[in-house]
Amino acid sequence: MRWMDTLVQEAEAWLPAPVMTYFRQGAGAGLSAAEAEAHWDALRLLPHVLRDVSDVSTRTAVLGTSVDTPVLVAPTTLQRQAHEEGEAAMVRGAADAGSLVCVSSNAGTPFGALAGSGPWWVQAYVLRDRQLTLEMLGRARQAGARAVVLTADTPVVGEKYGNGPSVWETVPDDHLMANVAWRGVEDTQLEKAADLTPATIDWLRTATGLPVVVKGVLRADDARECVAAGASAVWVSNHGGRQLDGAVATARALRPVADALAGTGAELYVDGGIRTGRHALVALALGATAVFVGRPTLWALAVDGAAGVTRLLTELTAELAHAMALAGAPDVASVTRDLVHDASPTRHRS
Amino acid sequence: MRWMDTLVQEAEAWLPAPVMTYFRQGAGAGLSAAEAEAHWDALRLLPHVLRDVSDVSTRTAVLGTSVDTPVLVAPTTLQRQAHEEGEAAMVRGAADAGSLVCVSSNAGTPFGALAGSGPWWVQAYVLRDRQLTLEMLGRARQAGARAVVLTADTPVVGEKYGNGPSVWETVPDDHLMANVAWRGVEDTQLEKAADLTPATIDWLRTATGLPVVVKGVLRADDARECVAAGASAVWVSNHGGRQLDGAVATARALRPVADALAGTGAELYVDGGIRTGRHALVALALGATAVFVGRPTLWALAVDGAAGVTRLLTELTAELAHAMALAGAPDVASVTRDLVHDASPTRHRS
Amino acid sequence: MRWMDTLVQEAEAWLPAPVMTYFRQGAGAGLSAAEAEAHWDALRLLPHVLRDVSDVSTRTAVLGTSVDTPVLVAPTTLQRQAHEEGEAAMVRGAADAGSLVCVSSNAGTPFGALAGSGPWWVQAYVLRDRQLTLEMLGRARQAGARAVVLTADTPVVGEKYGNGPSVWETVPDDHLMANVAWRGVEDTQLEKAADLTPATIDWLRTATGLPVVVKGVLRADDARECVAAGASAVWVSNHGGRQLDGAVATARALRPVADALAGTGAELYVDGGIRTGRHALVALALGATAVFVGRPTLWALAVDGAAGVTRLLTELTAELAHAMALAGAPDVASVTRDLVHDASPTRHRS
Amino acid sequence: MRWMDTLVQEAEAWLPAPVMTYFRQGAGAGLSAAEAEAHWDALRLLPHVLRDVSDVSTRTAVLGTSVDTPVLVAPTTLQRQAHEEGEAAMVRGAADAGSLVCVSSNAGTPFGALAGSGPWWVQAYVLRDRQLTLEMLGRARQAGARAVVLTADTPVVGEKYGNGPSVWETVPDDHLMANVAWRGVEDTQLEKAADLTPATIDWLRTATGLPVVVKGVLRADDARECVAAGASAVWVSNHGGRQLDGAVATARALRPVADALAGTGAELYVDGGIRTGRHALVALALGATAVFVGRPTLWALAVDGAAGVTRLLTELTAELAHAMALAGAPDVASVTRDLVHDASPTRHRS
Repeated sequence: MRWMDTLVQEAEAWLPAPVMTYFRQGAGAGLSAAEAEAHWDALRLLPHVLRDVSDVSTRTAVLGTSVDTPVLVAPTTLQRQAHEEGEAAMVRGAADAGSLVCVSSNAGTPFGALAGSGPWWVQAYVLRDRQLTLEMLGRARQAGARAVVLTADTPVVGEKYGNGPSVWETVPDDHLMANVAWRGVEDTQLEKAADLTPATIDWLRTATGLPVVVKGVLRADDARECVAAGASAVWVSNHGGRQLDGAVATARALRPVADALAGTGAELYVDGGIRTGRHALVALALGATAVFVGRPTLWALAVDGAAGVTRLLTELTAELAHAMALAGAPDVASVTRDLVHDASPTRHRS
Repeated sequence: MRWMDTLVQEAEAWLPAPVMTYFRQGAGAGLSAAEAEAHWDALRLLPHVLRDVSDVSTRTAVLGTSVDTPVLVAPTTLQRQAHEEGEAAMVRGAADAGSLVCVSSNAGTPFGALAGSGPWWVQAYVLRDRQLTLEMLGRARQAGARAVVLTADTPVVGEKYGNGPSVWETVPDDHLMANVAWRGVEDTQLEKAADLTPATIDWLRTATGLPVVVKGVLRADDARECVAAGASAVWVSNHGGRQLDGAVATARALRPVADALAGTGAELYVDGGIRTGRHALVALALGATAVFVGRPTLWALAVDGAAGVTRLLTELTAELAHAMALAGAPDVASVTRDLVHDASPTRHRS
Repeated sequence: MRWMDTLVQEAEAWLPAPVMTYFRQGAGAGLSAAEAEAHWDALRLLPHVLRDVSDVSTRTAVLGTSVDTPVLVAPTTLQRQAHEEGEAAMVRGAADAGSLVCVSSNAGTPFGALAGSGPWWVQAYVLRDRQLTLEMLGRARQAGARAVVLTADTPVVGEKYGNGPSVWETVPDDHLMANVAWRGVEDTQLEKAADLTPATIDWLRTATGLPVVVKGVLRADDARECVAAGASAVWVSNHGGRQLDGAVATARALRPVADALAGTGAELYVDGGIRTGRHALVALALGATAVFVGRPTLWALAVDGAAGVTRLLTELTAELAHAMALAGAPDVASVTRDLVHDASPTRHRS
Repeated sequence: MRWMDTLVQEAEAWLPAPVMTYFRQGAGAGLSAAEAEAHWDALRLLPHVLRDVSDVSTRTAVLGTSVDTPVLVAPTTLQRQAHEEGEAAMVRGAADAGSLVCVSSNAGTPFGALAGSGPWWVQAYVLRDRQLTLEMLGRARQAGARAVVLTADTPVVGEKYGNGPSVWETVPDDHLMANVAWRGVEDTQLEKAADLTPATIDWLRTATGLPVVVKGVLRADDARECVAAGASAVWVSNHGGRQLDGAVATARALRPVADALAGTGAELYVDGGIRTGRHALVALALGATAVFVGRPTLWALAVDGAAGVTRLLTELTAELAHAMALAGAPDVASVTRDLVHDASPTRHRS
């Protein structure tokens, strides 16, 4: 059994069933959630031989922050359901692996508790109440967040179908939105804004003074539009299959977006089904600056807190370095498109 | 379990086995019937982000009739086996959801009973006895039918193989062809006409004074020919896999037909395996003006009559609106071809 | 259950296990034998609508012989193991269905017993001993064989692997090669000739005075070469998957061969996995003049002798006529290439 | 059951479980190891008919050594765990089948014991300690090795995951690296060199005076680079799926590499999943000079020592000759690219 499968099993033994269900589930019929990993697996590699790989380095930088690994932590919610220390453990654990965390704006941990424990970015759901949103981001900035990641794929929340009790019936108040002053506010004000436009990018950049990443992009034209509107980076994501079911797999969407951003100077990230160092290698080869891992960081957090997160990221990074050595690529810059078989044409299996 | 699967199970508990079998079965080896839904599922989406979708509308119009939803009701037979009120409940239930029904010329409900209960079209099997056919259509027109849908794919009836007793042994006379004066007529006169040609379109239009839709078209050349011969719309259908087994899936046939009709002003409908709002979104993106749902409306009718039909259509429409919001398309006009991944080339998997 | 599956089951109940095994098995790993039918199934149809199909005819002609159906009987061996009357029943049964039989040169029935019972062709394995071969063909000609079908794909016999006793241990002498004077001849003289060339075609034509069909062709260049060398027809076949395992499916090989023969006046036949009228329709659309059915005729013969064969061919022909009506093709000439989806490009799935 | 499957079962009954596991396993998730054979199976054949194949010869030559068969023995380790006589039995058994062995530099048999027992090449892992490497190769040359096969795909050893005890805990010292003077040397000096470059090829050629084959090449550009740097042959291999998991199947990599080497005079070999004579035929058709078989030779060695190896290679060669006859190719030179269906375009399924 692969160690990743073992990790999921161990997490399942620890997590309450409604939480585990919530973490795993996808929207609708679950098509996109179910297929993400298989699309990375389907891409075959064309390794180089007879390259000097006696010294392999996975070091890189994202938006000016140096990291020891391009394997970073995607935003997820309810981290305090996975582990009492929640986001604090996640950031500390990631920092110990030389990685970085994108912390959810729904985090159950006050951003202040993250200050100084490691590099992190803040994910932003823009709420109908823009003021509450900006206050939340202000707290993030004050606590050291180095970038704002605008989630663009959630004008409404994807429908999830499941059996058994909903996680929302069991989560205590203090595990929810610790950084939004939601008490006494009308529910509708706390809903996601459905009227975002590319202009939202500049508004966020100006208001926070931080670089803006747009997360949830799957199209080349949208990617170009985001960069033209001021985004420093684009994040290819279908939200773990939790928003529009049937949205294209990120392993298929990545290359055309990379082509669209070539020469713009914008960075490019991807998440969705990345479960091995080989998957990370494929993503880098197709054009990603870095990859983000979501669900597995929850399993690791549940099983062993910060130490679990460190182990997970260290192991994935070791797998990546191993795959780079075997592919003849001693550093991230040498992980090029031609390492992926049949990568030149943009068409994929439908 | 998806709610659609639950609906099927509930219907199965209500419906007599021969009726359930008849509703479900396809012709021949059942290839086309079995694969319809999977072909919609196989088409991946490329949603837009950062579009204002705070106000999503599914409103549209079909042949001049305004509808709140492009999810309409396909013609099916033996509706009175599903529910005592049959077609009357179907039309009323659809109207309550802002939808429209295409009523079968085999309906067990006298057309007069439908008058005033909601918008409906009449489906036409042209019989060998043309006079009986025209009288049937005259009754339909008098009862308010707004269009004639000529079924073109049934010169002979597709062979269906099944175990157990046939539905035809158990259906009472008054559930059959309530609008055709079949008593005392020779059986051969009641057979489907096998000598239809494009000229039949104009004959129907002139005789009824109603716009004519041609249902059962799967080819671009046939579609153009129908419009040239006077059809107001073309309906891509393989008859739920109940006629020529092995006929191409409508999800694959739709795009070339849409291309063929571009600029003609003709409307375009599609049915076959549409079971979710996402499927409807894909169909609209590929060029459909509206989609028709068949078997699920029988399940809904069996389970809860008119109210069941309303719930089904309301739910599918809500799913469509949800998918439109997540795809960045606030209205039907903005559901464009580019939302479907790999949609540009006409080739598909074979 | 499809009637064809039922037929196989019934035959299995009658036939000795080693015979059933021998009839069913393919060479090597059985790849080609296993996939034949699926390749016909994979080809989707694009039926025409609004064509006058009130009078559908399957009549055609093969090498000048009029037949009521293009569904003909392929050569198979050990027919007397399936039914005491063997080839005699096969020819009589086929004639009653308006069809024609290609009788194996290994037949256990003396050719003389076939005279006058219906149209038939003789299949020819050219043996190392050419004289024995010509004598066998002379007997066939005398008994009314109208063409010689040269099996070109058997320079050596394909290896078949199976469990249980071999059929060859149980077959009585008088069920084998009743038309070859094999007694007292050295075994090697009875082996298949491995040194055939295109010149063999003319040699056969001259020696027998009959038109020559080359069976076992899978390539366009070979097909052209055969016709240039005097063949009147080419028969696309991989010998039911019993010779070169991994040989391309005939459903994939047919179209390029048809393209190669266009304009030559040569006829084109195909066998391999044709089990429904729909399969026959696809084959005709891709360019076949007629199709040949092998194993099912053995099942039919085993179950009910000549009457079983008549029923089988009548049923397949009825299915074909039904499919033609549903495809808008009233006669064989109107079954054109465009009825098959994605048929224009020669590339297939690999 | 195919005889190859029977052979695996028999070997499994003989071999200790950790050894069997080690022989079978692939790296990582085992994707490349699992799919190798299926990719050969997926390539369909277009046999020629009416060619004179009364005399089929599989004779050929590799780097000047005449062999009766292009089916050769790939290097594998721990052969003395399969059979007491190990590499000695392997070389003798292969010679009796007219074949040739590539002996691992990790062999547990002193090279001297192989002298005179049959043609063999030596596989080379270049160690960090170059001197130890050259001494090992010197022994090989002295014992009659006719070529050096540089393994280029192993700068680090692929990670293998498995349950149960590791083989390395149970193997006695004298089954390991009998030709490397490893006693008293630091472990790091015995590690694989990770700093090889194309210049290593010339270094090996000069130091040993033997022709150099580069094994582990999967890319056209690498293949050209190797030949330009002095390689006499290129060996397409993904190391049996034991190095970079997800590396392209050799059945897919072979053709572009063959195209790259056309006209250079370099020979081309391939291994990975070749289990039948038909697979060998496909490989030769796609451009291989010869094929190498790995794991099955271990099963054969385990089951019956040298005699088992002879039987295996004789049987595979007989299958190849049989397939050549059925494909209309009487000798290796006539096994051309056009025998493989859809072989002309370089693109494959991804």
